Amino acid sequence: MVRLTEDQLISRFFAPLAILPGARGLTDDAATLSVPAGQHLVVTTDALVADIHFLADDDPDLIARKALRVNLSDLAAKGARPHAYTLCLALPPGWREDWLQRFAEGLGVDGQAFGFALLGGDTVKTTGPLTIAVNAFGLVPTDHIPRRDGARAGDTLYVSGSIGDGALGLLARRGDAKLAGLAETERDFLARRYLLPQPRTGLAPAVLAHASASMDVSDGLVGDLAKLLRASRVSADLDLAAVPLSPAAQAACDLDAALVETSLTGGDDYEILCAVPAEQRSTFEAAAQACGIAVSPIGTVVSGHHAPRWRDDEGNDVQFVRGSFSHF
Amino acid sequence: MVRLTEDQLISRFFAPLAILPGARGLTDDAATLSVPAGQHLVVTTDALVADIHFLADDDPDLIARKALRVNLSDLAAKGARPHAYTLCLALPPGWREDWLQRFAEGLGVDGQAFGFALLGGDTVKTTGPLTIAVNAFGLVPTDHIPRRDGARAGDTLYVSGSIGDGALGLLARRGDAKLAGLAETERDFLARRYLLPQPRTGLAPAVLAHASASMDVSDGLVGDLAKLLRASRVSADLDLAAVPLSPAAQAACDLDAALVETSLTGGDDYEILCAVPAEQRSTFEAAAQACGIAVSPIGTVVSGHHAPRWRDDEGNDVQFVRGSFSHF
Repeated sequence: MVRLTEDQLISRFFAPLAILPGARGLTDDAATLSVPAGQHLVVTTDALVADIHFLADDDPDLIARKALRVNLSDLAAKGARPHAYTLCLALPPGWREDWLQRFAEGLGVDGQAFGFALLGGDTVKTTGPLTIAVNAFGLVPTDHIPRRDGARAGDTLYVSGSIGDGALGLLARRGDAKLAGLAETERDFLARRYLLPQPRTGLAPAVLAHASASMDVSDGLVGDLAKLLRASRVSADLDLAAVPLSPAAQAACDLDAALVETSLTGGDDYEILCAVPAEQRSTFEAAAQACGIAVSPIGTVVSGHHAPRWRDDEGNDVQFVRGSFSHF
Repeated sequence: MVRLTEDQLISRFFAPLAILPGARGLTDDAATLSVPAGQHLVVTTDALVADIHFLADDDPDLIARKALRVNLSDLAAKGARPHAYTLCLALPPGWREDWLQRFAEGLGVDGQAFGFALLGGDTVKTTGPLTIAVNAFGLVPTDHIPRRDGARAGDTLYVSGSIGDGALGLLARRGDAKLAGLAETERDFLARRYLLPQPRTGLAPAVLAHASASMDVSDGLVGDLAKLLRASRVSADLDLAAVPLSPAAQAACDLDAALVETSLTGGDDYEILCAVPAEQRSTFEAAAQACGIAVSPIGTVVSGHHAPRWRDDEGNDVQFVRGSFSHF
């Protein structure tokens, strides 16, 4: 098999994705990035390694889209609109052109869907697993974006969408026996949520306008919430029953109560966790409803440096064995 | 040994490098990047994999600095001033804290030397080799930066510094017998040039002001020059004897004439190759001299789509077996 050179590979697969004028069709060594007047640039970067952040035999289309979406999720949590990204791709021995074509198609699909254009990149070979580093650029119309450290006592804590699908979806993807009692459609739903997270891009303007603090949930709700509270030097009272579960995740937890902890401490949710001051609750909820993204209040920020208190529906304290999932 | 968590690792080693306000001390999920009025952002990214782009047992301080410098070299060739970077680091099994500390020190040394601040990043583990992806941000006071495709017939082609030290330095670093006849100081000089390339940041304003086309030489002068000419739809007459060689590289080529080809087609020069219109030659040379960076005219751009012509000092055509080095 005649291998494409790096230049051929770029022009065939990646140049069509580089639609911003500053990317110059990826024919140069650097791009220019213009920031419209009145806008500010938000920058985030996430790397993914095969068999750590995704499975090497996942569909390349989905691997590509996940690589973009985990970054889009960070932008959304900061209230930013997607703009552009760079991509570093380390290809393992034996990579195939058809694999790369599917990968590039995935980038194209989500790039178009989210208004997220390829700005530049680098393709190298590696003797190790496929490794993908995406550097994402978003735009916000203010230089005051919601951070982790702005939560104040009295704020309501919200999460978007549903929690636990990603962690349960990894089990489903692996054919774990714990989910054998679920319907196939439920397992498929969960696996899909693991493979293709849904960044809450539509919610970004509401978060920007109303949240006092915000982050995306990627390493488990319990641990990420603790990080947000610690950064804000506050604590919280949380209602376990208020954590939104999808019907499939609920079914899994009904089958095996240990999966509640998996759901709340596992990774790969890519939902938004944010704190909203009491007087802005109704406008935040209305804005979320207007963009069709569910947001659920799960508790209240309180003063103090103690660990956040999770209570079940009988008012009993709940402890989690594992605070947070870490890909690291 | 108790391993640091990712958060501890960030706060201990990387947060001190994040001096821009928008980086928020790496305590958040994203950074903001302000672009001063009248400035434009130049973005480039390069990934390095152990034992492909550097040797895994190179000094971690030098690995870090090389990772920054290959990106700084791209910025310099585009006339941009260094501003900030993000870093994705995939650490192999068995990484050690003292390794990471040395690595971070290297980032700190060059970050300070070049005014290049850490803006954000991601640290992941890998089952493969150490992998480093740097996304670099530079600033230019214009949106018209020198590209590969602007060379015109009559322009003079210049290269900065000296050519071939990097490729010969890799041989030196590996203890290759071809260099056994050199003095130890010469081998050390060459190895150092491989380990620690010198981005021509000081030359950036002169390149921005005077070059019609510019790129950095990273994959060998012969191949990179051919790319610049192809992009510009022109050709060139080149004078082999005018290619600047360091005394150590000259000594190596005197020992073994085959090393001339290694020098001109090997990688890792990280010098600037640029085309300068005839009427700007003297001001370009004066500007280069003012910033203390040698620039050497190596030939002239001519019309036509034929392969560039390299001639030796007797006027004979020189052919290169290998056009260009590729890390890919």
